[in-house]
Amino acid sequence: MTQQFPELWYTEKYTQHFNSSIRIKEKLFSKKSKFQLIEVFDTYEFGKVLYLNNALMVTERDEFFYHELIVHTAMTACAEAKNVLIIGGGDGGVAREVCKYPVEKVKVIEIDPEVIEVCKKYFPEIAKGFEDKRVEVLNQDGFEYVKNCKETYDVIIIDSSDMVGPPPIGPAEILSSREFMENCKKILSEEGIFVAQSETPIFYFEFIKEYLKRVKSVFPVVKYAVIPAPSYGGIWSLTFASKGNDPSEPKREAPSGLKCYNKELHKAIFSLPNIWRMDEISNRI
Amino acid sequence: MTQQFPELWYTEKYTQHFNSSIRIKEKLFSKKSKFQLIEVFDTYEFGKVLYLNNALMVTERDEFFYHELIVHTAMTACAEAKNVLIIGGGDGGVAREVCKYPVEKVKVIEIDPEVIEVCKKYFPEIAKGFEDKRVEVLNQDGFEYVKNCKETYDVIIIDSSDMVGPPPIGPAEILSSREFMENCKKILSEEGIFVAQSETPIFYFEFIKEYLKRVKSVFPVVKYAVIPAPSYGGIWSLTFASKGNDPSEPKREAPSGLKCYNKELHKAIFSLPNIWRMDEISNRI
Repeated sequence: MTQQFPELWYTEKYTQHFNSSIRIKEKLFSKKSKFQLIEVFDTYEFGKVLYLNNALMVTERDEFFYHELIVHTAMTACAEAKNVLIIGGGDGGVAREVCKYPVEKVKVIEIDPEVIEVCKKYFPEIAKGFEDKRVEVLNQDGFEYVKNCKETYDVIIIDSSDMVGPPPIGPAEILSSREFMENCKKILSEEGIFVAQSETPIFYFEFIKEYLKRVKSVFPVVKYAVIPAPSYGGIWSLTFASKGNDPSEPKREAPSGLKCYNKELHKAIFSLPNIWRMDEISNRI
Repeated sequence: MTQQFPELWYTEKYTQHFNSSIRIKEKLFSKKSKFQLIEVFDTYEFGKVLYLNNALMVTERDEFFYHELIVHTAMTACAEAKNVLIIGGGDGGVAREVCKYPVEKVKVIEIDPEVIEVCKKYFPEIAKGFEDKRVEVLNQDGFEYVKNCKETYDVIIIDSSDMVGPPPIGPAEILSSREFMENCKKILSEEGIFVAQSETPIFYFEFIKEYLKRVKSVFPVVKYAVIPAPSYGGIWSLTFASKGNDPSEPKREAPSGLKCYNKELHKAIFSLPNIWRMDEISNRI
């Protein structure tokens, strides 16, 4: 074994006072697109890793935790999902999991075409979600798309980059707005499920409380879930909402062969530590 | 606000290729005891933090996640726990939570008296567990204590420092041995519950698989749980074992006023991602 000097490390700031660092084998790609800084590295611990604006988005080693849990929880909670809308999702992982169901149409609204190109090149196992014929990709602003949309969707998945964190944050900030949520509600079917990545409660719980308050002011049913996500600081969170359908209850079987999701875990991710419980949150707000 | 240069950061290695760093306000204590390097820092993100041999043990801000989940899961699974044994537990947090029940005797076997003294001084809210009259502290080797013990315990809690990780590991390594587990089984009551901190599955799952294999070769009932633990890399794991009593089923109410533990979470921590499920593990071993 030859030792390499100097060692290369990539440091991701969670806050001004806490960060984590991954040792880099090699820089594979780096470019400032119209919307954000896109970087791809090969790492020792997590395989290939994608960063957008210095925030870790996806790793080869553990992407299935997040992708399976955001998709299969929503898709099994909705008994018959024909039309699925993905806002963000530029790596293709969410589309890949959605296509394991008998859906008719999957629309991916990714603002940055360069993210998709980079993922097709460096993460083919994730980006293969784009190969399915039912998947249509539009390079548009998700906020604008939803605002002007005339279609109806059974499952809406907000698979965005960060809405909060150390600057620069990026184009997803507006997806935490009440107007965006109201527009999502308008195009959600009666039995439909809305789910959004909603950051880590470890460092951003003040943001999340305000976020949940907004979702609750729009949707009659809102449930907050905390999921394991190794390379996202260990845990991450998802916010589910609907017009009445209970997102914590699976109504059909998930496809076989999954590495993370199962029916027991579906229910378990909604069982929260007292300090992160939504009933506690509404009491405190 | 005056800016301080240079900034002080403490970096904890999870593996050779991944670490996390906490910004330090001030170093409060540092000494090499007979057993390990003991350090206490005041930090911006987590309040005061204790490190043993460079591994983060406890933080003021989030200690309740781990302490409540290891204690209240075990204590409510055992309907009537009179005698409780704690191996390690030098910060006092486990004893503090155990004393919220009508127990008769709590024995803390902490090998390093200097850890206890440091925690009493810098973490009084955690170390107040030692003030209860039912708590007896013995500064002995936990392995030797259990080997020679003639008493019987209803709950045995292994609240040790790390058994695996980058060197130096420290005195807890031997607590992953089969001999230690066999000796614990000998002194566990028929309805008793054994629980051990068992590292993070994110980085040490190969170790954990071997560890669980050993526990399963000793105890008829073994259940593996994954818990939220912000400053431990986001998640940590606990291994529960018994002679027949189901650790995943609470048999009595927990005390009120807890920040993390509740009955739903008790059941949820045993619902695991497929790749960490014990049935999968036994298939693969």
